[in-house]
Amino acid sequence: MRLYSSVIKLTNQYPATLTHLGGQHAHAAFLDIVRAVDESLSQRLHDLNGRKPFTVSPLMGLPKGFNREARKEREEDRMKNSIAKSEIRLREGWECWLRVTMLDDGLFKSFIDYFMNLTSPPSPLLKGEGSQKGEGSLPRIRLGDAHFMVSEILTTPGSHPWAGYISIEELQKRLDEPAPEKFTFELFTPTSFRLQDKEVATLPTPKLVFGNLAGAWRALTGENNVEAVEKYAEKNLTLGTYKLRTDRLILHSNPQLGSVGRLEFIRTDKTDHFPARALNLLADFAFYSGLGRKTTHGMGMVRRVVQ
Amino acid sequence: MRLYSSVIKLTNQYPATLTHLGGQHAHAAFLDIVRAVDESLSQRLHDLNGRKPFTVSPLMGLPKGFNREARKEREEDRMKNSIAKSEIRLREGWECWLRVTMLDDGLFKSFIDYFMNLTSPPSPLLKGEGSQKGEGSLPRIRLGDAHFMVSEILTTPGSHPWAGYISIEELQKRLDEPAPEKFTFELFTPTSFRLQDKEVATLPTPKLVFGNLAGAWRALTGENNVEAVEKYAEKNLTLGTYKLRTDRLILHSNPQLGSVGRLEFIRTDKTDHFPARALNLLADFAFYSGLGRKTTHGMGMVRRVVQ
Repeated sequence: MRLYSSVIKLTNQYPATLTHLGGQHAHAAFLDIVRAVDESLSQRLHDLNGRKPFTVSPLMGLPKGFNREARKEREEDRMKNSIAKSEIRLREGWECWLRVTMLDDGLFKSFIDYFMNLTSPPSPLLKGEGSQKGEGSLPRIRLGDAHFMVSEILTTPGSHPWAGYISIEELQKRLDEPAPEKFTFELFTPTSFRLQDKEVATLPTPKLVFGNLAGAWRALTGENNVEAVEKYAEKNLTLGTYKLRTDRLILHSNPQLGSVGRLEFIRTDKTDHFPARALNLLADFAFYSGLGRKTTHGMGMVRRVVQ
Repeated sequence: MRLYSSVIKLTNQYPATLTHLGGQHAHAAFLDIVRAVDESLSQRLHDLNGRKPFTVSPLMGLPKGFNREARKEREEDRMKNSIAKSEIRLREGWECWLRVTMLDDGLFKSFIDYFMNLTSPPSPLLKGEGSQKGEGSLPRIRLGDAHFMVSEILTTPGSHPWAGYISIEELQKRLDEPAPEKFTFELFTPTSFRLQDKEVATLPTPKLVFGNLAGAWRALTGENNVEAVEKYAEKNLTLGTYKLRTDRLILHSNPQLGSVGRLEFIRTDKTDHFPARALNLLADFAFYSGLGRKTTHGMGMVRRVVQ
């Protein structure tokens, strides 16, 4: 079994306004794609309780300062709530991207089949042109009121910083490798954690980070090391350097607070044994599983940084 | 009794190299000043166990990018440790400042007397010129190998963002005011906390922040509310938005890691009673007491931000 991370490159077709960058529209678009190929799989994903075997990013790669103009207009309107702040005016021809991860071979096959079926000639992949849906049509994705042309889908490791695939067996090899002294993470989209008392934590503590990843690993493989990992992380990891700030993603009109930035965990326990090696596996797994809450809606897009 | 925060404006007299911005030299210069006026007070400050009734900042206000040239040379030398990185080349005529807070009327009197005695004519304060120490000489401060002329000392509230004074009675009036829902702090120099197990924490949690301030208040007034404040803060404050990163100050050749940036604590308990009002007092007290470890050497220079 493999885990996949695909980057979908998009070009905006018409001027459009999005009320947010959040992954809510992208989430719906992803489920539509799966439904078009395999309706029962889409239904199973929808009905699944607990951690789902995919993640979807917000709309990424927009030009810096893209909403300066809109912000100025809004300031004139003296509208100051965070939802208004997140309104985005997309220009025709703007290029951006989405990223989806799929922790399931069948899911990835459906996803890729969808674009293959739409594309003629099928090679080079997704470069076909046309005007009708079906054989020969141009792959398109709609997010809210915005219509995008799909120009490319990247999954090969190295083709894009957020693309790649890995087998579960390869991840499990981390258990045979000595554990590193440091684990560094980049939190790329707002990341937060649901606590047992239903409160939300925005500080990525060792216990929350690795406990959450261990939960995702359990959902995927059935291996339940959550408690051991949490205990080890809480006792043996300390926060090193960090640069973190809160940021918001708007999901279904609600601002969701989370942490973005970079942080480093230092292992104070110098013995090299199972739980430490499990952290090494989980740190690499994070690229595919995402971290924390609402990873199917754009939150918790993270990666390990190896320095 | 009043608490004082004075900003000492400095002009560098000769080209010089400082190995760090840390408050170690400024700390020594401050004690020298006190010793020159009141040797026994200086000795008492030196011998005092626990929280001292003053804080001293690192050298502040240097031009941005001031050490770019030096850094380039060092990169050519391929020296990459953090101590080398902190070497600073000061040009002649550069203006900068130090900030000291004094939680004691006698201490402030000694401090101001020192400069008054050096200055002739005594008014306008500290604008006198001369070449000899003593009556008529120019106030000077030496930090390591760097020699500075003192151009001005600001203590009046409003004269500088880091200057001011307040009486303890005025702070105590916070206990008669309704407690706010939010407390926002700006950590201006690296801030960290000594934990009971001798470890150092760089994350400003509600318990650490207000517990530390309550300890400083106890050292000043003898009122011991530390435990009640810690309990209240831990239970009833939650982290809101934040923008924090670790930074280092070099003290006695050792890099000291701490947090800088801005953070907001939100009060989840909506009842307005004593412990919440005590937080309001402590949040204003932080400007004078500093926060956390090594506040006499430049760490933990913080202020409350009222939005």
